[in-house]
This record gives sequence, C-alpha cells and structure tokens, in this order.
Amino acid sequence: MRMVDIIRKKRDREALRPEEIRFFVRGYSEGTIADYHASALLMAIFLNGMTDEEQLALTNEMLHSGDVLDWSDLPGVKVDKHSTGGVGDKTSLILAPVAAAAGVVIPMISGRGLGHTGGTLDKLESIPGFDVQLSAERFREALATTGAVLAGQTAALAPADKKLYSLRDVTATVESVPLIASSILSKKLAGGIDALVLDVKVGSGAFMKKQSDAFALARTLVQIGQRAGKKVTALITDMDQPLGTHVGNTLEVIESCEVLKGQSDGALAELSFELAAHMMVLGEKADDLDSAHKKIREMIDKGMALRKFQEIVAAQGGDPLALDDYSLMPTANKTEAIVSPCSGVVQRIHAEEVGVAAMLLGAGRTSVDDEIDHGAGLVLHRKVGDPVEHGAPLATLYYNDGKNLSESRSRLAAAFTIGDEPPPPVKLIQKIIS
Amino acid sequence: MRMVDIIRKKRDREALRPEEIRFFVRGYSEGTIADYHASALLMAIFLNGMTDEEQLALTNEMLHSGDVLDWSDLPGVKVDKHSTGGVGDKTSLILAPVAAAAGVVIPMISGRGLGHTGGTLDKLESIPGFDVQLSAERFREALATTGAVLAGQTAALAPADKKLYSLRDVTATVESVPLIASSILSKKLAGGIDALVLDVKVGSGAFMKKQSDAFALARTLVQIGQRAGKKVTALITDMDQPLGTHVGNTLEVIESCEVLKGQSDGALAELSFELAAHMMVLGEKADDLDSAHKKIREMIDKGMALRKFQEIVAAQGGDPLALDDYSLMPTANKTEAIVSPCSGVVQRIHAEEVGVAAMLLGAGRTSVDDEIDHGAGLVLHRKVGDPVEHGAPLATLYYNDGKNLSESRSRLAAAFTIGDEPPPPVKLIQKIIS
Repeated sequence: MRMVDIIRKKRDREALRPEEIRFFVRGYSEGTIADYHASALLMAIFLNGMTDEEQLALTNEMLHSGDVLDWSDLPGVKVDKHSTGGVGDKTSLILAPVAAAAGVVIPMISGRGLGHTGGTLDKLESIPGFDVQLSAERFREALATTGAVLAGQTAALAPADKKLYSLRDVTATVESVPLIASSILSKKLAGGIDALVLDVKVGSGAFMKKQSDAFALARTLVQIGQRAGKKVTALITDMDQPLGTHVGNTLEVIESCEVLKGQSDGALAELSFELAAHMMVLGEKADDLDSAHKKIREMIDKGMALRKFQEIVAAQGGDPLALDDYSLMPTANKTEAIVSPCSGVVQRIHAEEVGVAAMLLGAGRTSVDDEIDHGAGLVLHRKVGDPVEHGAPLATLYYNDGKNLSESRSRLAAAFTIGDEPPPPVKLIQKIIS
Repeated sequence: MRMVDIIRKKRDREALRPEEIRFFVRGYSEGTIADYHASALLMAIFLNGMTDEEQLALTNEMLHSGDVLDWSDLPGVKVDKHSTGGVGDKTSLILAPVAAAAGVVIPMISGRGLGHTGGTLDKLESIPGFDVQLSAERFREALATTGAVLAGQTAALAPADKKLYSLRDVTATVESVPLIASSILSKKLAGGIDALVLDVKVGSGAFMKKQSDAFALARTLVQIGQRAGKKVTALITDMDQPLGTHVGNTLEVIESCEVLKGQSDGALAELSFELAAHMMVLGEKADDLDSAHKKIREMIDKGMALRKFQEIVAAQGGDPLALDDYSLMPTANKTEAIVSPCSGVVQRIHAEEVGVAAMLLGAGRTSVDDEIDHGAGLVLHRKVGDPVEHGAPLATLYYNDGKNLSESRSRLAAAFTIGDEPPPPVKLIQKIIS
C-alpha cells in the first residue's frame, strides 16, 4: 500500500477502505508516513468529505492508536459530556456534580483553554489545591468514591488524533465535519465511556458559525458514536452570545457555585440542567427528561448538588471551603466598568470578541505555553434583549496586570451592539439529536 | 503573511494575490515553508483550480526562482518546442535540424526519460561522443555556430519547480492543469526563449488521457505563455498509439535519420514537419505554414536537414558518421519477433504498454538512477488500421539482457488489439491553438 495511491483515491472522491485508513493512521502515528503525505490527504478529505464508513474507520483507528481506559469493573453506566467549546461555557462544573449526585458515573476528561475559549481544567485550578493531574490510581479511587472526576488525561489517549490535530491547525484543515467528528469521538471513546452527551455550539463564539454546519456535525457525531456502540445524544445550542455572565477562571467557578446553590437561573442553569438531565437518562438514573428535571430541581433545593461538588473538590485535593468563601480563590485587584454610551436594547454580544477581551486581561492563552491569571476576566451586566440606559454599566473588567487593558476594553465595548428595537428571540437549545 | 491563511484562501476557492504566491514559492524554495504546508496548498489548488492571474504569477515566481538564460546578444528569434511526452516521440531530433536549417535559432533544453516515456538526451547519447552536458560557454558557441543545441540544463533553471514537482509526485497532485502549465512554462521561459511550440499529447500513452483535459491544458499554456510576453502555439496530437515505429534510443535515432533522409513519411514525419513549420513561422523564417512546408520538403530533398543534424552532432562532440552507418551506435545482439495469432486489422496499440515493454528490455528507467541500454527497444511492423495475416510479425524486440524478456513480450503482445473491422480513423494533429 502506498500513501500516494490513498491520497489519489480521496482526491478523486472515492471512499477509502478501512485497511487504507488503518495504513494511514498507523503509519502517521509511527512516523513512517510523512507530514506532507498527511496534509495532502487532510486537504483532500476537507474538500471531498468522507462516507459514514470512512468516518467510523477513522474514529476507530485513532481511538486505538493509544490507551483505551476501562471502567467496566465499576458499576453503572459511564457517561461523559463534550462541548465543542464557547465563551463562558462552564457547564461541566455544574452538570458533573448534578448528574453525579443523581448517581451517574462520570469519568470526565477535560482540556485547557486556548484562544478565546476557556478550559475546564484551568477553571478548576482556581480552587486552591485542586489537582487535575491525577494518577490512574487516584482517578479510579476518586471516581469510585464520588462518582465524578474532572481531570486531564492520565494516559496517552488517541495520540494519533493529537498529532493529526497539530497538523490540521497549521494547514487550514480544522473545520471539516469528518475530521472534527473523528477527533472528538476518538478521544472521548478512548476515555472508556458507555454514553456521551454532546453540546454542539453554534454562533459567533463557536467553532461552527452556521446552523447547517452545526447540524451536520451533530448528526455525524451521533451516527458515528452510535455505530461505535455508544449511546449518544447531541444538543445544538446557541453560542452567539457568551453563556451566562461570567468569563474568566475564578469568576466562572463563582457563577457555577451560584447555579448549584440555586441563586442563578438564567441560560447557564437552563443549559447545564438540560445536559445533566440527558446524562441522567443515558446513565439510567432517570426514566425521562421530565423526571430528570424534577430530580435536579430537588437536588439543587436540598443543597445536594453543591455538596457533591464539594465532595469532588475534596477528593481531588481542593479546598471545598472556597466554594462558599470565594475570596479563597485568586482574585483580581482592579476592576473597571464599561458603560453604555446610549439608551436602548442589547441587540447582540459578539461572543468571540468577549472571549478575546477576557484573554487579553490574562484569563486565557494566546499560545499553549502562556501562563493564566486565574483572577482575571469579566462580568456581563446585560445580555441580549436586556434594556440599557445611557451611562449604565454593560460589563466589568477584572484584572491584575493592566498591560492589554485598553485593547481589551475597546474590544469588549465593540462586542456589544445596542439598538432601539428588541432583537428577535434566540433559542438557547435549538435542537436535540439522538 | 502566514501559510495557513494562504492555504485557507485557496481551500475556500478564493484567488491568491501575486504577493501570496510569491511568499509561497520563495519560502518553499528557501526552505522556510515546510513540505506539509506546500502539499496542503497543492491539493487545494488541484481540487479548486487557479485563475489565469494566479497561474501567471505562479509561472513568473517559479521562472525567477533560479537563473534565467539570455540569448539576446545572438540575432534571431529563439524558439523551443516542448512535448508533454509520449512513447516513440522523437520529433525533437527531426524538427531541430529542420527548423535550424531554415534559420530558426533553437536553444533546446531537454530531459531524460522516466517510466514508459523516453528522453531526448538519452536518445542523443546513443550517438558516439555526443555530449549533452555542455558548459554555458560551449552551449552558446554551438548555438551561435549551428543555430541549434540539444542539451541538458547548464544552470539552475526554475529550481522551485523542481522542488515542487518532487512533492507533487508523491502527493498525487501531478495531473492539475494550473500546476502542469506553470511547471512547463517556468522551465521553458527560464531557457531564455522568445517563442514556444507546444505538442500536447492526448491518449493512452500520454499524460492527458482525455481530449477535454488536453484541450484545457493547451489553452492554458497558450494563454499564460502569451501573457508572459511570448509567442506560443500549441498542437494537440494523438498519443493513443506510439508515434512512428521505433521505440528505444538507438532505434529512435535511426528512425529520425530516415525521416531526415526522406526515407520515411508516416506519422512521425508528418508531426515533426508540422511542428518545425510552426517553429519557422514563429521564428519568422516562413510567412505561413504552407510556405514553411514547401521549404521543409525542399530541405529534405536536398539533404540540408540531414546535414544540419550532422553539424549539430559534430558541434556537440558526436560522430556524424553514425547518422549514416547506424552500426556505430550501440545495438542489441538479440532480436525476437512477435507474430499475430489471428488475421484481421489492428484496432489499437496501447502506447503506454508499448513504452513499458521497451523499458523492461532496458530502453528506459524505472527510477532516475537506472542505467539505460541504448541498443534495446522494439520496432512496430503494424500500426493502427494496418491489416495483418495470421502468423505475420507485429513487432520485433531488440535486447541484450533478456532478464525481463518474457514480461516485455507478453505486455507488447497484449498492447495490440486485432479485430475484423477497420477502426475509425484517428487524426494525428487534432487541434492547433495559438
């Protein structure tokens, strides 16, 4: 088998056989296939697509390119959630304790933030002592004890995907449904789960800017995941404006705690509870979404969800007191408000620009080696559809190092669009595919 | 400027600006742009095409990536011919002396054979002493004296094309009109010519198997070449069966001499004279094709064309006597005829298979480092449309080393298709574009 023939086939819109996909993934992992071969094939896949069979084979090959975790000795259905990423998306911090409190087993492997989107691991590290780099033994122990672990990889999961992703990033072959779907699923399935809830974001702050692209990705993820023998549900949700009000690491932990305490009931609570409800159904801890939601309401009201979060934090070495006394987490020593120069209604908040504004304050990374300022970030005081008076605060910046303050301020201000008419209502949860 | 943005643009079917093409070609030549970047862009160009402006810019950048020869101190229009390659294509050996005898100045830079197609340099090296590696000084001196030189590169012409071509070869991005056109033209224009006659082959033995592809390539070559300020004419010619009857290095020199002596008037003479006539018109040595053909006939009859070939051979160190006494060239010590197992009419002779059969006998290379057996090859006794009796010879194999004889014999036999009905007539010269 020769790579040039495999590339030619895909170039000519023919479907690759599983053996050809195996030859490529294994050879590329092992270094016998060069980057230039891989990048030509990636571009041909980007432009000519892949059949379901090809995508399944690609997912399987990447999944088996490294370790595959196995939790079958622990009782219960193992469920994870994956989000395609957005600004202010802290649902993992809420849905994991909520679903775990209901008895779902959640071995959640999360990532770090890059660019305008944050990462769950960075957020959790705002909690003093919280350890996201658990050994395989501690991961298993914590999972058995609390029912939920939120940590980084303990083993080399889908290393072929990692290598391919780096190449896609520099060759403009990222935004391809077959490549995204196989990348997401190979990593998640290597995590040893039985079921997966997917949050496919759509809008200005998301990877998928167009509804049709988000739908195509969601459908593919569900199809390929199910053909790989997993229970999969995908939600398509709005990421045109940031999710919730807080952006930045400590700030997002605070907002999550407020939701878990029943103190906040906006879009963040709505989406987090909906995702948790799907996890409970897939995890066989609720018969249907209605009873799941009823149970969630109850657990919130009784403080059970917050207590589960405290348990999880303690099991991973973190200080559970920080979830009540937020001053125990890193904070920003300076704040600055942005006020509205006009009266009207908020028409739009450009999510990606809000994410960049927070990143510029130190809340995120421009490159993987950057240090994060956990205290930095911003809080939105108005969301889309809210009325605002001239001179009223739109948002507050939180920062320690004011280096990029002026750029952050102007980008945040420009992220808002204020007009006279109320904007058309946007549905937070646009579609559910299962 | 970043390569990932340039790749993304082409991926999204946008036209690249000349600065972007310059950035790519220069960076790739200099090694600051990696192979994986280049191969992703090549695949995007392959699948999404290029505008005329992009192709002109790509040609110009590759042309100026190395030395550009300059013959402007020599009087006359400098004309070259380029063929996209085929089996038994020895027209250069005929048209160069013919057009030079008419006064056209021909600084012809030729290549070597690879795979099923032969190379002009290899054929000329069958002539004892013939030197194809002339220094820049000897090249100029020979050109000034005889009016025609047939040699390899004396300087680094279009090194960017050379590097890109190697990458295209292993990434299935060869058969792309914009990439082929810019590759051909950048090399030819770097040779310092004023006018170019192109022989675009179409058929089973050609690079372009389909008429529509050959037409598209020819049109592009003429357009881009003319926009680069050159006089360009392209002929689309049949390469479904081999050109002429002889395939192999010494054998092709012999067949060329026979044409120059007026002893052979088949397809090879027809095409060689037509190409020479176009060179004479572009080189301002004939007013039109009719008068060019009249002049060619006269020069053949008076022995002037053969004498010019003897001059060229002598000027490049070769023995002109070999053009009369063919035994002075390397020969094969064994021959074997292939006879027809049936009576009928030759329907088809698969050119590529004939080329491979000759290569297997030692007449060509499977890889660039292979040695060539100049005496080896084959002679076809029947061409398409010829009647053949049961038991009559179809072709004769010429060989010294019988290593691949049996494979060569069976491939050559299978290259013939014999049937009852005469095949539809095929036009040798299918179209002329200028």
